[in-house]
Amino acid sequence: MKLPIDLHFLRRPFDRRSPPGSAPGTATKPDDEVSSQITVTAYGPNEFVEQQIDDPEQIREYLGKHDVTWIHVHGLGDTAKLGSLAHMFELHPLVYEDILHPHQRAKAEEYGDYAFLVVRMVELEPRLDTRQISMVVGENYVLSIEEDCPHDRLEPIRLRLRKAVGRIRQLGADYLAYALMDSVIDHYFPVVETFGDRLDQIDDPLAAGYTTDLIPEIQRISSDLLTIRRNLLPHREAIRNMMSGAVPRFSDNTTVFLRDADDHTSQLLDAIDAYRQICSDMRDFHFALTSQRANEVTKTLTIIATVFIPLSFIAGVYGMNFENMPWQQMKDGYVYLWLLMTLVAFAFIGWFYARGWFKG
Amino acid sequence: MKLPIDLHFLRRPFDRRSPPGSAPGTATKPDDEVSSQITVTAYGPNEFVEQQIDDPEQIREYLGKHDVTWIHVHGLGDTAKLGSLAHMFELHPLVYEDILHPHQRAKAEEYGDYAFLVVRMVELEPRLDTRQISMVVGENYVLSIEEDCPHDRLEPIRLRLRKAVGRIRQLGADYLAYALMDSVIDHYFPVVETFGDRLDQIDDPLAAGYTTDLIPEIQRISSDLLTIRRNLLPHREAIRNMMSGAVPRFSDNTTVFLRDADDHTSQLLDAIDAYRQICSDMRDFHFALTSQRANEVTKTLTIIATVFIPLSFIAGVYGMNFENMPWQQMKDGYVYLWLLMTLVAFAFIGWFYARGWFKG
Amino acid sequence: MKLPIDLHFLRRPFDRRSPPGSAPGTATKPDDEVSSQITVTAYGPNEFVEQQIDDPEQIREYLGKHDVTWIHVHGLGDTAKLGSLAHMFELHPLVYEDILHPHQRAKAEEYGDYAFLVVRMVELEPRLDTRQISMVVGENYVLSIEEDCPHDRLEPIRLRLRKAVGRIRQLGADYLAYALMDSVIDHYFPVVETFGDRLDQIDDPLAAGYTTDLIPEIQRISSDLLTIRRNLLPHREAIRNMMSGAVPRFSDNTTVFLRDADDHTSQLLDAIDAYRQICSDMRDFHFALTSQRANEVTKTLTIIATVFIPLSFIAGVYGMNFENMPWQQMKDGYVYLWLLMTLVAFAFIGWFYARGWFKG
Amino acid sequence: MKLPIDLHFLRRPFDRRSPPGSAPGTATKPDDEVSSQITVTAYGPNEFVEQQIDDPEQIREYLGKHDVTWIHVHGLGDTAKLGSLAHMFELHPLVYEDILHPHQRAKAEEYGDYAFLVVRMVELEPRLDTRQISMVVGENYVLSIEEDCPHDRLEPIRLRLRKAVGRIRQLGADYLAYALMDSVIDHYFPVVETFGDRLDQIDDPLAAGYTTDLIPEIQRISSDLLTIRRNLLPHREAIRNMMSGAVPRFSDNTTVFLRDADDHTSQLLDAIDAYRQICSDMRDFHFALTSQRANEVTKTLTIIATVFIPLSFIAGVYGMNFENMPWQQMKDGYVYLWLLMTLVAFAFIGWFYARGWFKG
Amino acid sequence: MKLPIDLHFLRRPFDRRSPPGSAPGTATKPDDEVSSQITVTAYGPNEFVEQQIDDPEQIREYLGKHDVTWIHVHGLGDTAKLGSLAHMFELHPLVYEDILHPHQRAKAEEYGDYAFLVVRMVELEPRLDTRQISMVVGENYVLSIEEDCPHDRLEPIRLRLRKAVGRIRQLGADYLAYALMDSVIDHYFPVVETFGDRLDQIDDPLAAGYTTDLIPEIQRISSDLLTIRRNLLPHREAIRNMMSGAVPRFSDNTTVFLRDADDHTSQLLDAIDAYRQICSDMRDFHFALTSQRANEVTKTLTIIATVFIPLSFIAGVYGMNFENMPWQQMKDGYVYLWLLMTLVAFAFIGWFYARGWFKG
Repeated sequence: MKLPIDLHFLRRPFDRRSPPGSAPGTATKPDDEVSSQITVTAYGPNEFVEQQIDDPEQIREYLGKHDVTWIHVHGLGDTAKLGSLAHMFELHPLVYEDILHPHQRAKAEEYGDYAFLVVRMVELEPRLDTRQISMVVGENYVLSIEEDCPHDRLEPIRLRLRKAVGRIRQLGADYLAYALMDSVIDHYFPVVETFGDRLDQIDDPLAAGYTTDLIPEIQRISSDLLTIRRNLLPHREAIRNMMSGAVPRFSDNTTVFLRDADDHTSQLLDAIDAYRQICSDMRDFHFALTSQRANEVTKTLTIIATVFIPLSFIAGVYGMNFENMPWQQMKDGYVYLWLLMTLVAFAFIGWFYARGWFKG
Repeated sequence: MKLPIDLHFLRRPFDRRSPPGSAPGTATKPDDEVSSQITVTAYGPNEFVEQQIDDPEQIREYLGKHDVTWIHVHGLGDTAKLGSLAHMFELHPLVYEDILHPHQRAKAEEYGDYAFLVVRMVELEPRLDTRQISMVVGENYVLSIEEDCPHDRLEPIRLRLRKAVGRIRQLGADYLAYALMDSVIDHYFPVVETFGDRLDQIDDPLAAGYTTDLIPEIQRISSDLLTIRRNLLPHREAIRNMMSGAVPRFSDNTTVFLRDADDHTSQLLDAIDAYRQICSDMRDFHFALTSQRANEVTKTLTIIATVFIPLSFIAGVYGMNFENMPWQQMKDGYVYLWLLMTLVAFAFIGWFYARGWFKG
Repeated sequence: MKLPIDLHFLRRPFDRRSPPGSAPGTATKPDDEVSSQITVTAYGPNEFVEQQIDDPEQIREYLGKHDVTWIHVHGLGDTAKLGSLAHMFELHPLVYEDILHPHQRAKAEEYGDYAFLVVRMVELEPRLDTRQISMVVGENYVLSIEEDCPHDRLEPIRLRLRKAVGRIRQLGADYLAYALMDSVIDHYFPVVETFGDRLDQIDDPLAAGYTTDLIPEIQRISSDLLTIRRNLLPHREAIRNMMSGAVPRFSDNTTVFLRDADDHTSQLLDAIDAYRQICSDMRDFHFALTSQRANEVTKTLTIIATVFIPLSFIAGVYGMNFENMPWQQMKDGYVYLWLLMTLVAFAFIGWFYARGWFKG
Repeated sequence: MKLPIDLHFLRRPFDRRSPPGSAPGTATKPDDEVSSQITVTAYGPNEFVEQQIDDPEQIREYLGKHDVTWIHVHGLGDTAKLGSLAHMFELHPLVYEDILHPHQRAKAEEYGDYAFLVVRMVELEPRLDTRQISMVVGENYVLSIEEDCPHDRLEPIRLRLRKAVGRIRQLGADYLAYALMDSVIDHYFPVVETFGDRLDQIDDPLAAGYTTDLIPEIQRISSDLLTIRRNLLPHREAIRNMMSGAVPRFSDNTTVFLRDADDHTSQLLDAIDAYRQICSDMRDFHFALTSQRANEVTKTLTIIATVFIPLSFIAGVYGMNFENMPWQQMKDGYVYLWLLMTLVAFAFIGWFYARGWFKG
Repeated sequence: MKLPIDLHFLRRPFDRRSPPGSAPGTATKPDDEVSSQITVTAYGPNEFVEQQIDDPEQIREYLGKHDVTWIHVHGLGDTAKLGSLAHMFELHPLVYEDILHPHQRAKAEEYGDYAFLVVRMVELEPRLDTRQISMVVGENYVLSIEEDCPHDRLEPIRLRLRKAVGRIRQLGADYLAYALMDSVIDHYFPVVETFGDRLDQIDDPLAAGYTTDLIPEIQRISSDLLTIRRNLLPHREAIRNMMSGAVPRFSDNTTVFLRDADDHTSQLLDAIDAYRQICSDMRDFHFALTSQRANEVTKTLTIIATVFIPLSFIAGVYGMNFENMPWQQMKDGYVYLWLLMTLVAFAFIGWFYARGWFKG
């Protein structure tokens, strides 16, 4: 059996913390991060500019000159760039710290001039993991910083912006932030669905009883689903926080869409709970099957042993070397003995039958 | 044993989602849906018109000219028709999306000019499944869109409208929406009751101990009830939402009736919980019975084996081919040996009796 | 073993429902109900009239002419009488429906001119069951309708009214409604206490280990207590609802008494939980005892079998018919062999002792 | 094993109830109560009078003439005295009833002119039990009535009053009520600690495995702790009720102290939960140990039996009386046979080793 | 096996309590405390003084003359010093009592002129334990009193003050209190992470099945994590209390930082829950593995025993000393018998195969 536990995921956040008691905003550069790439996307209903930039100062050319400016940073490796961004957008030290230590729970916080959101993308390859996207949402800009991710979860939004699909170019920065958040949450669906596939594959061998390695697999699925649930749940709290008006940056117009994101999160949590319930049902089924078989095995042994033990005893008695034993010298003694043994055997079998041991 | 799990139900919602990150309101036509049939029912206290129409534009002939106009769409197959309905009633893209992706949780939402309700009908045939009815409730109209369902859950309402049973024709669009919702919830009663029948049928064989296949059946019932519960619970949330005044489209007059629907949902949830408790009690009873039998079997084997093992040993000893064994050449040696063996057997039986192994 | 489950109780409500989707207020006469008997009790501090009437119209002679008029209907069998009462008191269709379908949860609802209460009486004979009393509480009247019950739970109130015990004749209709409700709740105490008696009777045989049929009995008690809990809990919700002012018909004066009823309900729920905890403790104790005995049995078999198996083998070896075996032809061979076997036996026993198998 | 359940405690409340449906305030004298002794303690910052009185009317000499008058009644046996006290302090019938039926949950209620508190003292000797102290807290008096208790939990307060320890003589009647309540709650600490001692004594024999009677003892501790928890929890509810301002009799000054009582209750509940967790851990440990031993026993039997069964069979074969068996007449046949048997035995042992049965 | 329970930790609080019913503020000097050392740190943006003092009166030289004065007391051994501090800062008797009895739950309380905080440091060496730091936060001072701790958790704050790292010297006393609290909470991270290391070390031997002593170790980890959780949780309550404005001493400026401390506590609780889940998964895995092996052992015994029992019986039959047995005198009788026995053996093996006992 393989142990159904992956500690790697859980322990990652601890590796990256700054030492206890250090000042808020202390920046520790994660070693394994790629250097930071900045993309600026500025747009309005009738305009659209998209450009990769090197020097953060270039951002000033866009800010305030378009309806919405979206500055997207990929990779946390270049703390110089990130520091000048923090300076440019006057980020609170705690916000800056949360951006640099990408192990935060999803959340939505108001900071007066801007709102600060954290969402977590889920990855299955090469192992179950989550990555953080931090978003600073100001009046006419969104600054989003993402950890180095194997997959680009935000590409669909870029496509919608480029092609002006839907009303995304008509709406403000808060809508863009919602759209990014919703895209991240939407990507949980195929991930959760993967577990449906894995459960499907377990279905048949489980019913057939080839169960040696299925229990750890079921437990692994259940444990992974719990991990996803633990990462997803704070998103719902954050969204409800935003809907309740605690983050005034989000207009009533966008709140309607947040309700939709809330629905999606609830659906995901429902699906996760249902899959976990199935895991638990499968485990129960397996144990019922196993225990039924063990009972069957024990009962068979008992019946056979209990029938033969007295017979062997009788045979043993007649194997003794006494001079003077009844039947032994008689011509039909051997036949009589077989009759006796048959009688004993049937007496036991009949007794077991009467007690119902042959049923079920 | 048959595996008591049906993954089909759980996985259906995932098949129909639009790709992650796509714009809200993206319409994906479900492949297996029948084409959309539109029925218009317009009525007031003293008038009643019912007509099947083909072109959504014909609806304009009824809207506003009667106290209440009920437009009912059956089947999601014709996105052109649905699209022009969405245009006619100025539906929010999210509402339109929820109508087209019929895997929403039950809910009640306010959209200013109209309220949007989702309810889920439950089906048992051919397998446990639920279907969505979406309702848009405006000032003098109800637009209801239902997935292709094997059974028509709304027919009783049509009958009451045609025959003017009760006050349904005197009351407004919000009452019609309540009546449709209540009819859907009422249909959970016979479904839940089916599980009562199935539990009834398990009762006798379970007590008799023919339990080989009963455990998976009990688990299947328990699991199905949980699925129904999971679908039903959001209805209560939605109804309480409506009663609390968060959906102002529903007048105080109708709120009294919502209280009744809330009662029904609570009764259903109580019944489901009670049935699930019975499933759990049955399982416990089965395991108590099984474990009692296994103990009985083990005890019987132990007693018989423990009595015969020393006897067989004695017989084995006297089967040895030594020249010089006590009793062996004596005339009554064989009798003495039997006396010894009887003594040993009774010593063991007496010891077991003293330890209470023959009781219970 | 007897199956500790009584489905009858749970399924009763389902038998009496009107068909799904029928109009609110549809009256379905329960078949097994006795015909309705009406008793009018009119009183004030210094007056008291009590009379059985046949024609509901006679009620008008009392209504409003006394401080409080209490109309009590026993049995739901005569829908004509009930219908004219509903008409006389202008009952809402939903109230009328709830009266006729006596499977409602306990509740307290405000309907403007009157409050509507449902309470459930508990019965143990011939089986655990509950019956509904519906109360309509107006300014100067209480209309109470009760299902056909084997026992009259309201007689103590009638006695107090007749004999003017306490302040009941000084106080209004809301106090009468409270007194009726409190009397019903008080009758849960002896019922719950019956389960204390039954647990007492299980105590001794359980500790003695004669447990074959005790587990189902314990489970039956636990399951019945849960049923009572499920019926009692909504009373507390209803009382707290009334105390919170949501049902303005109940004056501040009566609210003090409601606090007392709330206390009683909490005490009952505490007692039920404590008894259920005892059931669970008893079950655990039984399984600990059973498992301890099973271990004892297994250990005994193991020790005896493990000691005798090698001895029997040795005896078997010397039962072989080889020409040329050591010791066999020696004079003391038989004694040597016994020494060997004793040695082997003690070696095993010593080994088991060293591993601690004889302890505990 | 001794059954770890004491039903006596749970059933006491039921013995003392007035019959269902009787008027509120019906006084039933508990049979086993000692007659009521009244002590009056009147004090202010600079004065202190303490006197036992016989006639309740004597109380009027103190009331209102000192800053605070504390009337303490010990024993519920003299209903005449209690009745005249109820009359003198104009107690509500429900308050009087709660005083006479000393099985109330802890609570704090406002009655306009006075507040009514119930607290429960915990006793361990001769068995776990709780006793009620009822307190009526008026503007300048506290009337406390206690059941007959084996121990006097209020003596420390009397000492502080006599010796003017702390500010107790400067503060009002509400502070005295708090001090009495706090003293009662403080006495839970040594009681809870007793269970720590008992768990300590179980520690060593449990680890050594002499566990026959430990499981019921652990269960008894766990069950008693639950009983204490159930009695303690309502105190916290009552205190929080008082802190929230729902009982205006308690001034802001005293509220600070209530916060301290709330802390103590939380600490006690934490300790009880932690001890119960330890009980549960001990139970799990015991079952792990037991199951490990049972497995060990089974494995040993299996290995020994499985090795000897084929050997015995071979010996049995060569014990057959055939004329014509290979090796039998050979000179070294016996040696060959032993070689064969050794081979078989080692083959089995090697096979078991390969499957890892000798590990762990 | 070693018992996975350490009662020492739980029982410590009880040793130090003042006797029940004693006046609030009764000071009991803990015996094992070192004498109290006082350090004064006074600072502003541009000034910094740090000095050890002996006489508490020296504090007056600093108080009010600097922006913030931090008086830190280490060790509770010198009640004279502590008493004069309590007098100087006019501490409420309850505050003084809580400082002297260092077993309080974490909390935040408002006392008008100052706020009172309690936090608990966690220690792993030499055993899991927690120590209390009490803080009195006034307008321009923080008085912190800590139990004798093996490690100094506040040193990082002192360093930041000395070197003016971050804005700590610009901000007020409330920020200092936050920084101290945050430093204490931060130190939970490495402690929790230790349990990650221990789980990592269990991983491999658990999967290999060398599990004899792992279960108690897992249970010890789980139990310790629960203890840490129980100590940590009240911190979150206290922080949320402070954030909600119930402790007005903390300005809006600091509230932003409290949000960060709240995030940290939530992350820690998440990690603890996840680790505890892993403990539970490991336990389940171990029991699945153990039960699978036990089944394997039983099945092997059954198959071997059931095959050999009839064969041994046949051999026993032919070992009987009858004169007249079929085959016995025949030349090929022995061969026929072996054929018979082979047939019987294969019949059984085939039957077991058909029942699927060789699978899984």
